[in-house]
Amino acid sequence: MIVNAKFIADLVKGEIKGDPEKPVTGVCGLKDATDDQLSFLGSKKFIEQAAASKAGTMIVSADTENEAAASGRTLIVCKNVDFAFTQASMVFAVPAPKPVIGVHPRAVVDPSAKLGNNVSIGPCAVIEPGAEIGDNTVISAGCYIGHDAKIGSDTLLYPNVTVMYRCIVGNKDIIHSGVVIGADGFGFVPGPNGLVKVPQTGIVRIDDDVEIGANTTIDRARFDKTWVKSNVKIDDQVMIAHNVTVGESSILVGQCGIAGSAALGRGVILGAKAGINGHITLGDGTKVAGTSSVAKSTPPGAVALGTPAENQRDYMTRWTLPSRVERLSQKIAALQAQLDELQKK
Amino acid sequence: MIVNAKFIADLVKGEIKGDPEKPVTGVCGLKDATDDQLSFLGSKKFIEQAAASKAGTMIVSADTENEAAASGRTLIVCKNVDFAFTQASMVFAVPAPKPVIGVHPRAVVDPSAKLGNNVSIGPCAVIEPGAEIGDNTVISAGCYIGHDAKIGSDTLLYPNVTVMYRCIVGNKDIIHSGVVIGADGFGFVPGPNGLVKVPQTGIVRIDDDVEIGANTTIDRARFDKTWVKSNVKIDDQVMIAHNVTVGESSILVGQCGIAGSAALGRGVILGAKAGINGHITLGDGTKVAGTSSVAKSTPPGAVALGTPAENQRDYMTRWTLPSRVERLSQKIAALQAQLDELQKK
Amino acid sequence: MIVNAKFIADLVKGEIKGDPEKPVTGVCGLKDATDDQLSFLGSKKFIEQAAASKAGTMIVSADTENEAAASGRTLIVCKNVDFAFTQASMVFAVPAPKPVIGVHPRAVVDPSAKLGNNVSIGPCAVIEPGAEIGDNTVISAGCYIGHDAKIGSDTLLYPNVTVMYRCIVGNKDIIHSGVVIGADGFGFVPGPNGLVKVPQTGIVRIDDDVEIGANTTIDRARFDKTWVKSNVKIDDQVMIAHNVTVGESSILVGQCGIAGSAALGRGVILGAKAGINGHITLGDGTKVAGTSSVAKSTPPGAVALGTPAENQRDYMTRWTLPSRVERLSQKIAALQAQLDELQKK
Repeated sequence: MIVNAKFIADLVKGEIKGDPEKPVTGVCGLKDATDDQLSFLGSKKFIEQAAASKAGTMIVSADTENEAAASGRTLIVCKNVDFAFTQASMVFAVPAPKPVIGVHPRAVVDPSAKLGNNVSIGPCAVIEPGAEIGDNTVISAGCYIGHDAKIGSDTLLYPNVTVMYRCIVGNKDIIHSGVVIGADGFGFVPGPNGLVKVPQTGIVRIDDDVEIGANTTIDRARFDKTWVKSNVKIDDQVMIAHNVTVGESSILVGQCGIAGSAALGRGVILGAKAGINGHITLGDGTKVAGTSSVAKSTPPGAVALGTPAENQRDYMTRWTLPSRVERLSQKIAALQAQLDELQKK
Repeated sequence: MIVNAKFIADLVKGEIKGDPEKPVTGVCGLKDATDDQLSFLGSKKFIEQAAASKAGTMIVSADTENEAAASGRTLIVCKNVDFAFTQASMVFAVPAPKPVIGVHPRAVVDPSAKLGNNVSIGPCAVIEPGAEIGDNTVISAGCYIGHDAKIGSDTLLYPNVTVMYRCIVGNKDIIHSGVVIGADGFGFVPGPNGLVKVPQTGIVRIDDDVEIGANTTIDRARFDKTWVKSNVKIDDQVMIAHNVTVGESSILVGQCGIAGSAALGRGVILGAKAGINGHITLGDGTKVAGTSSVAKSTPPGAVALGTPAENQRDYMTRWTLPSRVERLSQKIAALQAQLDELQKK
Repeated sequence: MIVNAKFIADLVKGEIKGDPEKPVTGVCGLKDATDDQLSFLGSKKFIEQAAASKAGTMIVSADTENEAAASGRTLIVCKNVDFAFTQASMVFAVPAPKPVIGVHPRAVVDPSAKLGNNVSIGPCAVIEPGAEIGDNTVISAGCYIGHDAKIGSDTLLYPNVTVMYRCIVGNKDIIHSGVVIGADGFGFVPGPNGLVKVPQTGIVRIDDDVEIGANTTIDRARFDKTWVKSNVKIDDQVMIAHNVTVGESSILVGQCGIAGSAALGRGVILGAKAGINGHITLGDGTKVAGTSSVAKSTPPGAVALGTPAENQRDYMTRWTLPSRVERLSQKIAALQAQLDELQKK
């Protein structure tokens, strides 16, 4: 596949600076790109890399085009560089393999399960009694869909996903391998003879347009539901405990965890390895830095850093403490000198 | 299913304050409960939520009943609120689906495996030569039971659990999906030509009444055994390395990890995301706060916070350091003023 | 199996101090070893345990042999104690079960897949069109090998491993259960109508002699490849994001995570639960302490501690701050007393 720079510029609605006929055979990151490849400068952080890059064509923004210019390079200037590069990379992408429509003879589908039109059920997938699978949905090899679970339409389950009984998965969701939806929440109460398991009688409900990364676990509720609302994007190895609510369009980065009954508002962002205490509320748009752990509820738009998390000002006060203590130490030495001098007199 | 408040009070041995005939159709948390639902106030933290709740019936303790009172609400006063609510919620719970007794025709069971009475072996489960499955035990769809592994009686393996060769799982255990028991411990020694794998020739032994959360991994020992003793409760995505011992009735909360050869006493509690160094001992009843990492052995009853973990006093000294430094800074300014004043004279 | 101390000494090329005929029936750790067992003292940390041990035979180094001596105990003195003990433990190890050569009748192998000589394909394994499996490679029960994926020779996949389409796994690799290779990287860009998924069109490439622990996830690249180079050893529940490069012979300990496009040099060591920010470079031989999170690139040989990580000196300055502030506080009190005294005069 060979196109020219103009083809890309038209596609992303960008403006060409340089040779519109410059051939482009593929996309690549700044470091490894060659003269016949397209790269992009999406952030000022990478200006040095861009200057040194051998990419023959580069998507840039208006405020970086000068820094990205290089002899013989063609620039494509546009507003949303990341989005434009994503569009351009699709031109060269080998498409993912297409699922085979129908029920594989080695799948195990209970006769009482309801399958929509154009579903694909892979080999060794198991679909239990009463489960429902929507139109155009793909249940890949080795997946398990429990009793009376409901999977919506146009949803893609990669191989070896587990959805337990009665849980509800929405439409246009993407669920990666190793995900477990609907294992029991973690609840025990002291009884007369030691710990007693608290029955987890609720479900997990996943709304539409949600993506869930590999080996993430979302536990079923103690009662009612654990709820991941629409458009939420979840990375790998995230843990969502029972009765948690995750608001629309929230982003949960890898290895973060949310303890029981926490409620996240809309558009919350949890950085990698972040932790959220149980029974607290994060206001809409709260941003939690990677590795930070939030112990108290936050207002809308909060930024939380550190463990336990603080606001940015308090966090910076804490972080810069060593240099402040050094300054105080010098002041004390100066005071001591001044005092000793005075005393001599 | 409709019962009345008196039915619940009799069940949990509580005392009714209000209308014993108040109908109850289900259970719910304080926030979302309606007039025909039962809720509970298990901690003083939630008194405000309880006051605002629309729950028509509420289980409370003697010291919270005044705060939980509301016009038209029926209270059920009892000692162990959490345990009572758990009992009550079982009245309304739809039971989990019952496993089908017998070996599914699409399971793969080696003829040399020994199956107890009333076992349930799901479709696509694989049971290798020499494995033993106890009476009434459920091996769900897609599980793998390795060569000569032994699973006790009345134990429940949810779908897609992996138990490797020779490992031993006890009686009345519950193991959630995605758990891996008996993968190799992580051991390499520098040899003449680079890293050499240290063979992991031991096993994992899980005693009775243990619960293990989704996608948790417990590695086989370098030699002898990695040992999870009876009544231990393990949450999701916990990692237990080789040759670790976890004492009876310990509680390991989500995403915590225990490094090789660490020994936890009885009744140890590890908070979410806590980490325990290798080759150390945690005394009976040690409590490790969430996200804390313990680098040194602890005495019985210790409380450990922070990374590396300290006792509560040292941790609080460290945590409150910014305000202490602020006070010292003010003292220094006052000293300077006093000294300057004196010098003028 | 019974051997004598001389047999072990010859095997590990060590020197006997004591009875060469001392019988040895197995290996064990210092704490639990008995008189007929072989143990080892690999680090001065365990000298007390060694002195108290009942092991009848012990592998030690020249500089610990005096401390390890005990009445009636036979010592085997050698240079690399860990490596020697590993060799010795193999004498007694029950070998792991041998995989059955051939394709199990309950495996699902597409006719277009290419299988090498002496492969073992377990029951319920699924091998998609165009996939290639090298000679002597084991694909255990329940594994999934995606379209056009390539698995090298002499490689061992334990049960329930997922390798997605087009990914490449090398020779002599060991991949434990629950591992997911090639799930989509986590990428979304703001589009005109909310978050737009960035297609992840690249692959994962794993080179030779790599070991990957249970439930680890390695995501496919946005474009080009996520690359784990030869001899890398990865523990359980590690997360490697898209477009990451891990240099030769690096060691990634349990539950650590590496964010997108980070590049690790050769021989990097990440401690347990460590985190590495996206788009940074760790120089060859960088050591990151457990639970530490690195936010900036490091030079070769760097040691990084804390969150965000610092060098050892800055980290220790920060860690010892409470005692420094205590000393400053005492100095201030002394200054105040001196000043008050002076003022009185």
